[in-house]
Order: sequence, then C-alpha cells, then structure tokens
Amino acid sequence: MAEFTLYIGNKCFSSWSLRPWVAMKQLDIPFEEGFVRLRTPGTAADLAAVSPTGQVPVLNHDGRIIWETLAILEYLADLFPGKKLWPADIGARALARSAATEMHSGFRELRYGWPMNLRRPKGHKPLDAEGEAQRVRIEALWRECREKYGKGGPFLFGHFTAADAMYAPVVTRFDTYGGTLAPDTRAYVDAMLATPAMRYWYSEAAREAWPEPGPDE
Amino acid sequence: MAEFTLYIGNKCFSSWSLRPWVAMKQLDIPFEEGFVRLRTPGTAADLAAVSPTGQVPVLNHDGRIIWETLAILEYLADLFPGKKLWPADIGARALARSAATEMHSGFRELRYGWPMNLRRPKGHKPLDAEGEAQRVRIEALWRECREKYGKGGPFLFGHFTAADAMYAPVVTRFDTYGGTLAPDTRAYVDAMLATPAMRYWYSEAAREAWPEPGPDE
Repeated sequence: MAEFTLYIGNKCFSSWSLRPWVAMKQLDIPFEEGFVRLRTPGTAADLAAVSPTGQVPVLNHDGRIIWETLAILEYLADLFPGKKLWPADIGARALARSAATEMHSGFRELRYGWPMNLRRPKGHKPLDAEGEAQRVRIEALWRECREKYGKGGPFLFGHFTAADAMYAPVVTRFDTYGGTLAPDTRAYVDAMLATPAMRYWYSEAAREAWPEPGPDE
Repeated sequence: MAEFTLYIGNKCFSSWSLRPWVAMKQLDIPFEEGFVRLRTPGTAADLAAVSPTGQVPVLNHDGRIIWETLAILEYLADLFPGKKLWPADIGARALARSAATEMHSGFRELRYGWPMNLRRPKGHKPLDAEGEAQRVRIEALWRECREKYGKGGPFLFGHFTAADAMYAPVVTRFDTYGGTLAPDTRAYVDAMLATPAMRYWYSEAAREAWPEPGPDE
C-alpha cells in the first residue's frame, strides 16, 4: 500500500477534496488517490467504508486516518516542516491560520451561490447580499495577507501555503463566476490557476465522468 | 495594555467564547477579558470595533489580532509549547486536530437543538434525527480519543488539550439537555465541569446580566 492515500470525490465539483490534494501535489508529497464517486446511489456506503464522518477528503497514512481538511493540512505541516505549509513567521502563521479557519467554517452563502464547477462556462453571476458581503470579505482578506506578508511571491504569504490550499476552490469560483475582477484579485487567481497542481486538477476534471454537479460542492 | 486581551460574549450562552477562554484559564495563560454584550442594539458596532469578522472570540496580543477559535488555540499552542495544547504524540495530535476541526465546522443541528444555556434547569430534551446522529457521533469520538490516548487522565487525551476546549460547550449541553448519560460520557462531562476554569465560568455566567439566550449560541 502507498504510504499516503488521499480519498477524494469528483474533481469537477468536490471543492473540499481539492484543498489537501493541491497542497500535496504542489509541495511534492507523493500519495495515491482513492476515488469516491459522489452523488450516486452507492456513494454513502462508499464514503462510510473510508471515512469516519462519511465525507471526503480523508487521508490514510499507513492505516492512520486523518479527516477534516484543515486537520489533514496541519498533519502534513507536522510531518513535513521543510515544506513550509505554514509561514515561518509567527505573526504570518497566525494570520494564515485565521484566514484558513475562517474558510473552514464560513462563507456558506458564497459557496452555495457559486458552487465549484470546473466545466461551467465563465460568466458573471451575482450573489445574494450575504454572499456578496462574503465575496468582499474574501478579497479584503487576500489583500491583507498579500500586502503584509506576500511580497516574496505570488501567493497569500509569498510561497505556497495551506492558506492558499484552503482558498483554492474559492479561486476557481472567482474565475468562473466573478466576471471582471479587481487587478490584485485577478493576479492572485491567475497565479493559483497557473500552478502545475491546479492545471493538473483541471485537466483531470475535464476528463471525468459525470454526474452533473449539484447545488453545493 | 495587557499582553493578551480575549474578547468574548455573554458567558451564559456564548459557546464559542468559552473555548479559548477555558483553555487559557485552565493552562494558566494570563489575559484580560474584553466583554462584548451580545444581542443588544449596539452589539454589531461593538463587535466591528474589535473583530475583523464581526464575531467573538478574538484574541488581541499586543495589537496582533487573531480570530477564529481554532486559530486562536493554534496560536497559543505555537507560543506556549510547554502548555501542551496538543498531545505530544503525532498520532494523538492528528486525532485531536481531526476531532477539534470536526467540531469547528460541524454538529450544527445539535448546536441548534441544544443551545448552550448555563442557566437552564437540567432536563432531557430530545434532538431531531440529524442532531441525534451528531450526539451519537460525538460520544463515539470522545470514546475513541479516551480509549486510544486518554489513559493518563480524565480528559480526551489524558491531560487537558485544545480538543477539550473545543468540546467544552458541548459538555455543558450534554449536562443540561442530555438526561441520563452513558457512564463513560458522564465521567468525561463531570471531569470537565469539575475543572477550576469551568467552575469559574459557570459562576460568572450565573451573575451575568441578561439578555435571555436566543436559539443558538
């Protein structure tokens, strides 16, 4: 068995799956993929077989099961300090974790209003008032991270971190639904979409069998 | 100014506030309390003055602002490794973070069905089907942590950790609404409620001015 198996759902729309996957790919942590096809009659049983919460992503590390996206990223940060999943500076790290954790539990209306769908033709789609406030909040947060700590590279904290991984699906949503973006937002979105990991994920999503995405990720 | 100011809401019902507060108190990390009275006409403005998300808890560490409960706990773990906010063993730590993160974003129906209210007379209140499944899940999770790693003490990982802090408000809910609990659940709930930090929080909640708690924390 591979040392790491990351169980994920459909690449077209499983936004939570994308988060640890893109971190592992981008930081060259080898793993095998375990695929659970979502939205089929057998999905619930397939999920129950691999995940204590009935959700993906789940990381299996030689039999040790780690669930919850943010906990998987913390585990990888623990195991691979040289990969710098969090910024080295304690203030930057605190901001990165606040931003990542706000994503972990928040932005619900934006996520429902702009469901990740990598095959949807690009075009502006308005959000409701709550979703729009969340869109504005996310842009402000990205700006704060990049202005304070992002001078050394194109990502939120310069180099690629777990915070970028947490926002990777949101980046796709801004690209798909956001229409004309503010220049600094556009630059960040483009930098993320240009990573080899994201390009690979998109290419796999394009070749994936359906089903059609549903209302949320 | 104090080195640390932790902004919190009403002790009777602000369950998120309890989480970092109980960790700091229980682990003897000195801080000042910043109080934001919730559910008043001025609350939104008061929150906006201290919190980038308009929510409490927020930690102000000499001007550095850390928001989101789990990010505050990670920050304290970073600053005070000797306090052992996470278990030392990497497998235990992974389980603690999975459990803590599952709490951070989940158990919504249980939280709504059993809103934290430290003044409510104790008595069993049934949950809806989703909330009940979450109650069962939480008990299984507590059991898993304690059976695997909790032999050295009464808490989820033996000594008090951030995972206990994350579940502290849930402990109060089991006590308030749970009726007769399974013996191992009862033992964990009682151990948590017997900590000096929890006893102090309850005593302050009892003396607090209202308003009446609303439907969620």
